[in-house]
Amino acid sequence: MRTGIMQNYNTAALDLHRRQRGKWEIRSKVLVRDIEDLSVAYTPGVAAVCSKIAEEPKQAYDLTMKGNSVAVLSDGTAVLGLGNIGPEGALPVMEGKAILFKRFARIDGVPIVVNTSSPDELIAVAKAIAPTFGGINLEDISAPNCFYVEEQLQDIGIPVFHDDQHGTAIVVTAALINAAKVTGKNISDMSVVINGAGAAGTAIGKMLVGKGSESLSSFSPVKHVIICDRKGIISEGREGLNSEKEKLLQFSNTANMKGDLRAALKDADVFIGVSQGNILGADDIKLMSDSPIILALANPIPEIMPDIARAAGAAVVGTGRSDFPNQVNNVLAFPGIFRGALDACAPRITNKMKYAASMALARCIPEPTADLILPNPFDEEVAPLIARAVKKAAQ
Amino acid sequence: MRTGIMQNYNTAALDLHRRQRGKWEIRSKVLVRDIEDLSVAYTPGVAAVCSKIAEEPKQAYDLTMKGNSVAVLSDGTAVLGLGNIGPEGALPVMEGKAILFKRFARIDGVPIVVNTSSPDELIAVAKAIAPTFGGINLEDISAPNCFYVEEQLQDIGIPVFHDDQHGTAIVVTAALINAAKVTGKNISDMSVVINGAGAAGTAIGKMLVGKGSESLSSFSPVKHVIICDRKGIISEGREGLNSEKEKLLQFSNTANMKGDLRAALKDADVFIGVSQGNILGADDIKLMSDSPIILALANPIPEIMPDIARAAGAAVVGTGRSDFPNQVNNVLAFPGIFRGALDACAPRITNKMKYAASMALARCIPEPTADLILPNPFDEEVAPLIARAVKKAAQ
Repeated sequence: MRTGIMQNYNTAALDLHRRQRGKWEIRSKVLVRDIEDLSVAYTPGVAAVCSKIAEEPKQAYDLTMKGNSVAVLSDGTAVLGLGNIGPEGALPVMEGKAILFKRFARIDGVPIVVNTSSPDELIAVAKAIAPTFGGINLEDISAPNCFYVEEQLQDIGIPVFHDDQHGTAIVVTAALINAAKVTGKNISDMSVVINGAGAAGTAIGKMLVGKGSESLSSFSPVKHVIICDRKGIISEGREGLNSEKEKLLQFSNTANMKGDLRAALKDADVFIGVSQGNILGADDIKLMSDSPIILALANPIPEIMPDIARAAGAAVVGTGRSDFPNQVNNVLAFPGIFRGALDACAPRITNKMKYAASMALARCIPEPTADLILPNPFDEEVAPLIARAVKKAAQ
Repeated sequence: MRTGIMQNYNTAALDLHRRQRGKWEIRSKVLVRDIEDLSVAYTPGVAAVCSKIAEEPKQAYDLTMKGNSVAVLSDGTAVLGLGNIGPEGALPVMEGKAILFKRFARIDGVPIVVNTSSPDELIAVAKAIAPTFGGINLEDISAPNCFYVEEQLQDIGIPVFHDDQHGTAIVVTAALINAAKVTGKNISDMSVVINGAGAAGTAIGKMLVGKGSESLSSFSPVKHVIICDRKGIISEGREGLNSEKEKLLQFSNTANMKGDLRAALKDADVFIGVSQGNILGADDIKLMSDSPIILALANPIPEIMPDIARAAGAAVVGTGRSDFPNQVNNVLAFPGIFRGALDACAPRITNKMKYAASMALARCIPEPTADLILPNPFDEEVAPLIARAVKKAAQ
């Protein structure tokens, strides 16, 4: 039946994209009816605007598209579950992201897919086009390159934010804050297992243990985080760990547990899956502590189906899907985060801004229940609330 | 009085740009009202569209923004008459150009200003972002770099067109074709003086002498072209000629005339000014042959005011200004040229396509008069007519 639904979505999506030739277009905010209009919007009048900005480039935020636009930039190396399908193949996702920026935060998202195989070339392109935009949303860039690329772009004067890392981490953290309220446990006492050591898993781990939250009394970090990949628990001395996975040991698996995912799950309070479908069963849930929290985010098939997890004792279950309660969806975060950053003319998105976004998102549900830990992705009030918190944190 | 008008345009332009925060925004072509819409426009449905394009990248023309979008790309090194004012300063011009693409040819123009001083970096950026767009309009790039940059980008798979060169040349050629009809002279017998050896002057010269028009019986090239710069006639052996100006001698000044602009004007049939205001007087016009053609395109002040030129015997006078007859304005050409190229999915804009555009533009005025050699820039029929001719020439 799920396959049936997917089939329908695929056919409908192909029809829609072919009929509309994409989803994205531009619009003029000014009327150009006659030569008078042209002389004000274009030459000769525009020269005065150019000169003003040349004297003081910051004026571009008030006099051009810059102050309200975000580039949605990808090299197409890690598109959805499809992998490295190239820039043209990635374009429909970037267009989708661009119109969601507009839909939820009035931001002009500009899709840009880049034909390059080297992270340094991608960095050079991002630096070069930066004057056009108020921010850059990095999208669907494969790990570990995505970490290096984002890191190298933090000082270019506008926010550069890899949504697959931080957007996901921010929404997951908010989900966990509210799920903890439901179970009556204290986040800092929980032991958390993250399955998946890519962009999302890494960022979720860092955020949960409170990396960069030092300035925030309001966030109590998780003490015990274990991260697993396909080979099991990432532990000191495990063979063939790349440098990015080595780094995970700076904040995860402090007890240096070894073994497979099942070993990690023993007595754990939280499972966060950013891996692949149908890898857990009821028995695995039963290995965990009483009434555990399950965020099974693999799409379209979660690591375990919610009904099975609940039947096995899970207190709260969230997935990436819209046809179950507690959908963990990045659209809850990125529009408000960039809106807040643009409104503050922020030069970067700091950890403080990320935690502020996460806590503002959690506050959208004052009294969480097992079936309601996050707002609906179409709740119009979420982005403005996050934007306000992010702007405040930026100042 | 002219200064008064300019003042008003400047103030109006600053007010407009500040009020609107620029002139350009994006718009979604699809509704995203609920999860169903989201599942078709974005995940999971979009994956089917991505896969389709990954199999066959050409499909991007039908399934994404690519088939209808043109990047308006500049490094801000030669903005209007303002010179090298940097990328942010150039952005208002690129936004203006982008909305004119939409206004006259339904094309989604995307402003991109680039922070680089090196032509090779600009080339690298253009190559990298090419998969996103159906074409690239280069704008306000200083000579001689603009020649090298455009040349290096002719084989990247999409049209790359420097409007300051070819757009101007195409409109000027059309103007001259119709002005010749008014004076009853034959273009190929005319001697033409071009004042200004930058991007525009060079391209105008090349086009008038028929460079690349070999395939076109319908265009009769000008035999005698002389190009002047600030130091006078560009001639064999003149001291301190750079390589770009040396190249001009391959097709101009075949008699190797030497001297200043006045020497060049002696008995000339046509003066084309792409230089600076108020450099000619009535006496200079009187040096020319009977009833000469004057295209004084410096903005906002032409090389000679139309009334003075006409009083001194000029048969036809065109300027860049809208408050005199015969406005020579690039907006007459670039929307139709890119519309035609996009409709043909052309990999480049060939000389054949450029001449086709020029002759289609000339045909818009079947019976030219001294005060009507070009259509009004707001004539809605011009772009479609040029687009059809360009598409035909592309096939």
